[in-house]
Amino acid sequence: MVKVGIVGASGYSGLELLRLLRTHSHVEVGFVTSRSMVGKKLVDFHPSAAGVYDDLVFSTFDAAKAGEADVVFIALPHGAALDAVAEIDLDKVKVIDLSGDLRLPRDVYETWYKREHHHPGLLQEAVYGLTEFNREKIKKAALVSNPGCYPTSVALAVIPLLKSGAIGPEMMVSSVSGVSGAGRLPSGAVHFCQVDENVAAYKIGGVHQHIPEMEQAIVSYSGVQSKLSFTPHLGPYSRGILSTIYAKSSVGSTDELLEILKNSYDSEPFVQVLESGKSPQTKSVAGTNFCHIGAALDVRTGTATIISAIDNLGKGAAGQAIQNMNLMFGLEETTGLISGGIFP
Amino acid sequence: MVKVGIVGASGYSGLELLRLLRTHSHVEVGFVTSRSMVGKKLVDFHPSAAGVYDDLVFSTFDAAKAGEADVVFIALPHGAALDAVAEIDLDKVKVIDLSGDLRLPRDVYETWYKREHHHPGLLQEAVYGLTEFNREKIKKAALVSNPGCYPTSVALAVIPLLKSGAIGPEMMVSSVSGVSGAGRLPSGAVHFCQVDENVAAYKIGGVHQHIPEMEQAIVSYSGVQSKLSFTPHLGPYSRGILSTIYAKSSVGSTDELLEILKNSYDSEPFVQVLESGKSPQTKSVAGTNFCHIGAALDVRTGTATIISAIDNLGKGAAGQAIQNMNLMFGLEETTGLISGGIFP
Amino acid sequence: MVKVGIVGASGYSGLELLRLLRTHSHVEVGFVTSRSMVGKKLVDFHPSAAGVYDDLVFSTFDAAKAGEADVVFIALPHGAALDAVAEIDLDKVKVIDLSGDLRLPRDVYETWYKREHHHPGLLQEAVYGLTEFNREKIKKAALVSNPGCYPTSVALAVIPLLKSGAIGPEMMVSSVSGVSGAGRLPSGAVHFCQVDENVAAYKIGGVHQHIPEMEQAIVSYSGVQSKLSFTPHLGPYSRGILSTIYAKSSVGSTDELLEILKNSYDSEPFVQVLESGKSPQTKSVAGTNFCHIGAALDVRTGTATIISAIDNLGKGAAGQAIQNMNLMFGLEETTGLISGGIFP
Amino acid sequence: MVKVGIVGASGYSGLELLRLLRTHSHVEVGFVTSRSMVGKKLVDFHPSAAGVYDDLVFSTFDAAKAGEADVVFIALPHGAALDAVAEIDLDKVKVIDLSGDLRLPRDVYETWYKREHHHPGLLQEAVYGLTEFNREKIKKAALVSNPGCYPTSVALAVIPLLKSGAIGPEMMVSSVSGVSGAGRLPSGAVHFCQVDENVAAYKIGGVHQHIPEMEQAIVSYSGVQSKLSFTPHLGPYSRGILSTIYAKSSVGSTDELLEILKNSYDSEPFVQVLESGKSPQTKSVAGTNFCHIGAALDVRTGTATIISAIDNLGKGAAGQAIQNMNLMFGLEETTGLISGGIFP
Repeated sequence: MVKVGIVGASGYSGLELLRLLRTHSHVEVGFVTSRSMVGKKLVDFHPSAAGVYDDLVFSTFDAAKAGEADVVFIALPHGAALDAVAEIDLDKVKVIDLSGDLRLPRDVYETWYKREHHHPGLLQEAVYGLTEFNREKIKKAALVSNPGCYPTSVALAVIPLLKSGAIGPEMMVSSVSGVSGAGRLPSGAVHFCQVDENVAAYKIGGVHQHIPEMEQAIVSYSGVQSKLSFTPHLGPYSRGILSTIYAKSSVGSTDELLEILKNSYDSEPFVQVLESGKSPQTKSVAGTNFCHIGAALDVRTGTATIISAIDNLGKGAAGQAIQNMNLMFGLEETTGLISGGIFP
Repeated sequence: MVKVGIVGASGYSGLELLRLLRTHSHVEVGFVTSRSMVGKKLVDFHPSAAGVYDDLVFSTFDAAKAGEADVVFIALPHGAALDAVAEIDLDKVKVIDLSGDLRLPRDVYETWYKREHHHPGLLQEAVYGLTEFNREKIKKAALVSNPGCYPTSVALAVIPLLKSGAIGPEMMVSSVSGVSGAGRLPSGAVHFCQVDENVAAYKIGGVHQHIPEMEQAIVSYSGVQSKLSFTPHLGPYSRGILSTIYAKSSVGSTDELLEILKNSYDSEPFVQVLESGKSPQTKSVAGTNFCHIGAALDVRTGTATIISAIDNLGKGAAGQAIQNMNLMFGLEETTGLISGGIFP
Repeated sequence: MVKVGIVGASGYSGLELLRLLRTHSHVEVGFVTSRSMVGKKLVDFHPSAAGVYDDLVFSTFDAAKAGEADVVFIALPHGAALDAVAEIDLDKVKVIDLSGDLRLPRDVYETWYKREHHHPGLLQEAVYGLTEFNREKIKKAALVSNPGCYPTSVALAVIPLLKSGAIGPEMMVSSVSGVSGAGRLPSGAVHFCQVDENVAAYKIGGVHQHIPEMEQAIVSYSGVQSKLSFTPHLGPYSRGILSTIYAKSSVGSTDELLEILKNSYDSEPFVQVLESGKSPQTKSVAGTNFCHIGAALDVRTGTATIISAIDNLGKGAAGQAIQNMNLMFGLEETTGLISGGIFP
Repeated sequence: MVKVGIVGASGYSGLELLRLLRTHSHVEVGFVTSRSMVGKKLVDFHPSAAGVYDDLVFSTFDAAKAGEADVVFIALPHGAALDAVAEIDLDKVKVIDLSGDLRLPRDVYETWYKREHHHPGLLQEAVYGLTEFNREKIKKAALVSNPGCYPTSVALAVIPLLKSGAIGPEMMVSSVSGVSGAGRLPSGAVHFCQVDENVAAYKIGGVHQHIPEMEQAIVSYSGVQSKLSFTPHLGPYSRGILSTIYAKSSVGSTDELLEILKNSYDSEPFVQVLESGKSPQTKSVAGTNFCHIGAALDVRTGTATIISAIDNLGKGAAGQAIQNMNLMFGLEETTGLISGGIFP
């Protein structure tokens, strides 16, 4: 049994890790931490875990705590995550960091995240956890930097098409995220009455910190340096990201686009390429580690539209983190993850 | 491995059975049927099952089909369910019927369901599947009649209190159900624009067909003949039933009510009695087989308020059906079912 | 033109007053105040008012400010509202207070609101604004205490039935409110991910501060001293209260119940009694000052179920406040208020 | 008083016309028709109109019926709308058609709508009702073809920018619509459980019938022949369209984009250009005739992002229709329409 620790288990990603790990046959949850709820029972804060994790109590996190586990998931906000990783002896404990702190070169990070990077040395150790394209390195990694939710949804959708030359490097991307992507902390922006029956873009004009991560993942695994104009939106639902991506295309038909995607993902358990005429929907992947991809060619304008759907807490966070953990420990990659979407 | 057949797998309960069974370690899904989609791949109709049940194809149902399985779940509408059960040789195949066709004596059924009962002989065979109160009979049953969603939520909440004499037999019950309880068929009543931002009662004045089932379950397991005034409501969400129940009470405090409930459900894995001051919420049990129960005494009016939350597709349908299947096959009762609620 | 001031215009009730008053032919909005946004343009905070109230700027409130208006609406939280009312010279300016500060006798208020009442002298001046039952006093009032949302929904539903003796004085009441009832301030309880797809009761066990107001309104206008067991619920939608009320009944049929209600509200423009078999729905009254009432008799149990729907920000707050203002200024009572529900 | 008839008043657009016209000071509703509900009271089908339109009864539509009104709104599905218009004597009665039947040249219509055009002669008479850009012709028109919801949201956002040369003619457009855009008829696609917590694209690959209308409106009023790659999406809410539009831009800053938009719409009562850094949200315009527009320049990629929000039933249908009616009858253009968004 792999002994797991979750740092930041009061947040949504931490809770989703716990939910998914419950059906994982080779894992045992050793500890959960929270800065604000030390000593409290987890189920008192998360009633959805009642009867499932009755014995877990939030503890503080430190190096000693980390030592109790084989692998530690860091589910903290940016900045705090980095500090936590730095406390852990990576020779003894494997770490999967779900934050954005270890995904970018120092200077890019500091520019886009608008904060200093306190542990640049860790960047060498960190292996980017976009599982489908970085499997071999993840298997050997002591420290995995789990991809962001938007980057996962975009990179999976376009890498095969860029690699094959089917689409051009300039892309326009509109993504709609559920509110869980904004985290658990209350604010006017996530007040029910603000979000309900509403849809709006935010961080418009190409300023979202996930943009450099997208372009970096794309160039790393397709060899093509892309240029993305990205607009994130918030939609009135809890889970899921739908990304709609436009790029000029040289192919002659929708079928050609789908063929490339299908060939690329044929043996991938978690990436499903839809039939021609079908559109991905976020609800189909809710609660899962799946990514659904659809595409269509607008022959009139020569534009390919590629659409992907993931659960931002699943393949966009906790699901992919567990997929990576399975690789890191030599387990079957799908362990604990092959479950259908919560529908309806 | 127990070989399972699901009759009516195009509906919501059938789909939820499939989703839950996917993490069940002792089950193999043999066949799925649908009257309207014979020959179609299940994932073409249910994209949430893509990558999980890619090989399943809808077939027609008949006696021969039934013979391929160890247990058949009937997830059909009332009437059609009964006809399907009648086709099966109960000496060879176990059956769990999720419809209301086998829950009531013939005359009561005909009065409340306003239809003839075509196979009254089956009523002798059928064992009522309210697991927590009928375990021994379920273990030996060839045919289990799975309880209704509203009756499950109400019966679990009040049986211990009635049995102990803590509350009186006359109860006022307001339940709010998510829309999945109305089934998958389109109609004006389940149009998104009709339900969204709306809440309303239906079948007012004590005419819902679940009322006699509630009173029957209550008298069977508490010994008290109750009288329920029940009003179902539809709320703007997909899953979950919240039942708020009022009864006159002779106890002196909220703690006394909770004590009785806790003692009764102490060793039950799926019934969670909340601490004083806490209220059950449907989202905490979404996607699970759990039932959360809370209670409070209004000392000013001498009224006990008991509140329960279940997922109507979980403990109210597919979850409880699997719990019963586990008992019928001598498996650990919680197999495939101990997972936390989908939150957020 | 009646010159109006709104104290607390950053909140939901204040904003709804502004929206409704825009179509009122005899009103001019003089000032809007907010403690936290002095000097800011209203439309910068409330983009839904862009193009409609572009010139309004939040000011601080004081006695001088009040003097600029013919009538001042107080849309502040409890406590702050009372202090604001006390600053105003009621000989010169009429006041409509939407808070709970002036609805109850001092001792009852202090018990249920758990705070001291700082201006008990004002209680003599305040006229309770349940328009349909207190019209004559409201017409002459300088200070109207606008009813609470839950009390409005319950009192309108039961007063005629109690007065006529059709139902008994002991009632069980389950109300579901939209989230706007909880106000604009962010908190974990109103986080989108907490409320979405969820329904739960709160303040269970008869402790909600609206209970004494309900019983007081009922005895005042029906002559019957009632005893209410009341449970409020929060539902996943923004606007609307649905109250489902149970009482023992001596009448012989649903029609008798409806007849009493229809006779009572025959000439009331804002109270609509539904036909037998129809159920009120919150969405039908969204954005309006209407109250829809339905009823049914459960002949088997001798229980009457009475159901009412209002918009908590409409008839439950801003709508009724404007209805009262119309009376106080000798205007047609329906001015600015006869508009259909926002459907879909 | 202008006497109004509404053909197709059982649908959402017809109902919204009624709701908005209720506060219009110069209008009287003469008749409402519905093919399926002749003889029924309108309020029995639309309970949201109870107390407001109690006397209206659905009638059948024919030429004689039309003659009773000064203006007839056609709120029927494509095809049926055209037949209804053809019955009316345009010398005696003005007509505003909300369908797509009269917006495009015959051949374009037949290609994109995949149906024959039965009354091509009417195309000469029909004046396109994009009010802000076609005012003078609308004033004199006997027959107005009211714009589609998506085209309104896109055309208003980009015409000034194209006209000024600030953006290029090739555009990628992602729009999210609320479910009311799909109409009132039940189907699997609008079942609450299908839409709730879900977002998905439809008609992908440039096949939506609104595309030629967009390009036609754009070239008509900007002089620029554009090429649009358009993807419509369905979101889990009832009202509102948010369009996010990408185009290459030659300007140097976000402010330049906004300046052009502001100058263009400075004197327009219903088009609000937001400040830099602000994003339009559908909820701000719910229930109104407003269009909110925001824009930002991604200087890194040279792409302008322009975003607009309208209520698909407001500025996208009934609101704009009434705005056009006001012009056609020489009334103040804003009559009955200046009301803030329904928030929250």
